[in-house]
Amino acid sequence: MDRKTALTVLKLGGSVITVKEKAFTPDTKTINRLAEEVAKSGVAPIVIVHGGGSFGHIVAKEYEIFEGYKKPSQLIGFSKTRQAMTALNSLIVEALVGKGIAAVSLQPSACILTESGRILRFETAPLEKMLVLGFAPIMYGDAVLDAKRGFTILSGDQIVSKLAVSLEATRIVIGLDVDGLYTADPKVDPKAELIETITLRELRLLLSKVGGSRAVDVTGGMSGKMSEMIPALEKGIPVEMVNAKEAGRLFKALKGEEVIGTKFQLG
Amino acid sequence: MDRKTALTVLKLGGSVITVKEKAFTPDTKTINRLAEEVAKSGVAPIVIVHGGGSFGHIVAKEYEIFEGYKKPSQLIGFSKTRQAMTALNSLIVEALVGKGIAAVSLQPSACILTESGRILRFETAPLEKMLVLGFAPIMYGDAVLDAKRGFTILSGDQIVSKLAVSLEATRIVIGLDVDGLYTADPKVDPKAELIETITLRELRLLLSKVGGSRAVDVTGGMSGKMSEMIPALEKGIPVEMVNAKEAGRLFKALKGEEVIGTKFQLG
Repeated sequence: MDRKTALTVLKLGGSVITVKEKAFTPDTKTINRLAEEVAKSGVAPIVIVHGGGSFGHIVAKEYEIFEGYKKPSQLIGFSKTRQAMTALNSLIVEALVGKGIAAVSLQPSACILTESGRILRFETAPLEKMLVLGFAPIMYGDAVLDAKRGFTILSGDQIVSKLAVSLEATRIVIGLDVDGLYTADPKVDPKAELIETITLRELRLLLSKVGGSRAVDVTGGMSGKMSEMIPALEKGIPVEMVNAKEAGRLFKALKGEEVIGTKFQLG
Repeated sequence: MDRKTALTVLKLGGSVITVKEKAFTPDTKTINRLAEEVAKSGVAPIVIVHGGGSFGHIVAKEYEIFEGYKKPSQLIGFSKTRQAMTALNSLIVEALVGKGIAAVSLQPSACILTESGRILRFETAPLEKMLVLGFAPIMYGDAVLDAKRGFTILSGDQIVSKLAVSLEATRIVIGLDVDGLYTADPKVDPKAELIETITLRELRLLLSKVGGSRAVDVTGGMSGKMSEMIPALEKGIPVEMVNAKEAGRLFKALKGEEVIGTKFQLG
């Protein structure tokens, strides 16, 4: 595609932009600060993908949308989950537009079909045209149609990795509500230490430990997220994780400056 | 596609669901009544496509989105136009969900790319899967990416006709803020009479009269809308126009009952 410069794919975690414990509650202050940090960084072209947090997850869980179609009463639950994601996405898009970024919402369930939870078809023509013109497409984890299950939940992380690979992005930046990846779950183990850099080989080792035991997830629930990043890492696309709840860290990461966080690299 | 029953494509005009003169003002009472009429009719499968009315048109006009990309300052206008359509669409989807319809928003600009204003690519896999499962996909006139112009405005009418043809719909119902097609513009000519039935041949004759003169549009601004319906009519898909501002008329049309309006048929 004829973009002039290197593409950044930015993920904003659902727990960063919403108040986790309260249903349908955006963290408006953080959303506006992050919009400001993205605008100030001047990074372009950029695709932003955000999670669902307390907007998507609660309704999705109630109607068991992830598991797929089992009974007609789930249909209205799918409708509500989708609509909740549109509502959250509108807040993000409007915050970015408010800071002068030509952000354009791009509904994942309108251009993606999954099969057993994995992306099967992804129409990227509108998205690629957006990037050429100078828009910032904004996608999100969504309730999507699934060729096998009927429907399911597609994570923002899977979208990030798929997009980065197919659009040959130069980097992935992930904004979370923790400082990065730890040697143990920092919420449980006081000896947990932040991993500042990790190679793909080390990451695979870490994930095999998680997969091997049905007990504790040593990454503190981040193994799914990390697994999704492997295809991008295999293509040599660097991934950087920072705490986006802390002011200025996302800005520094976007600017390529040194910042507290975890860097994933090939090797 | 393996749908059990015949598909209805319903268009709801932008002037029906919004207050024309007031920017960003939905006609909430009408929206709720129409959601009720659709629900009560029990018609399924159904795809609903709505217009932009006072949500889309004002911003789109200000930034000359229809004309395509001319300068960077239009980008933010495109973002705003798109977001206005999402806002209106959310009101429609939520009204339908409120009446128990499993309505699912489907963003046109995420799955359609136009070329010089005409649909070039249209990823319908998610939409078709929605219909199989029993969802009611809700689309709308939208600000879309265009392979030639950069971007443009895609009318709901073009989507209606294209969808009806490609999904082999059995009928198109169009809800307007007038009773139907007239022999002259009813707002100008007191002798204007409602045309109750019109054949494709007669419609072509009427449109050639409009096209031939740069003066008055005898259809009262409906020639564009009518031209869009020709591909569907050529496929033998009947089109019925009713006044959706009048209570009960859309319901009757959906039920296949006799109602004041205009019927378009092959011949």
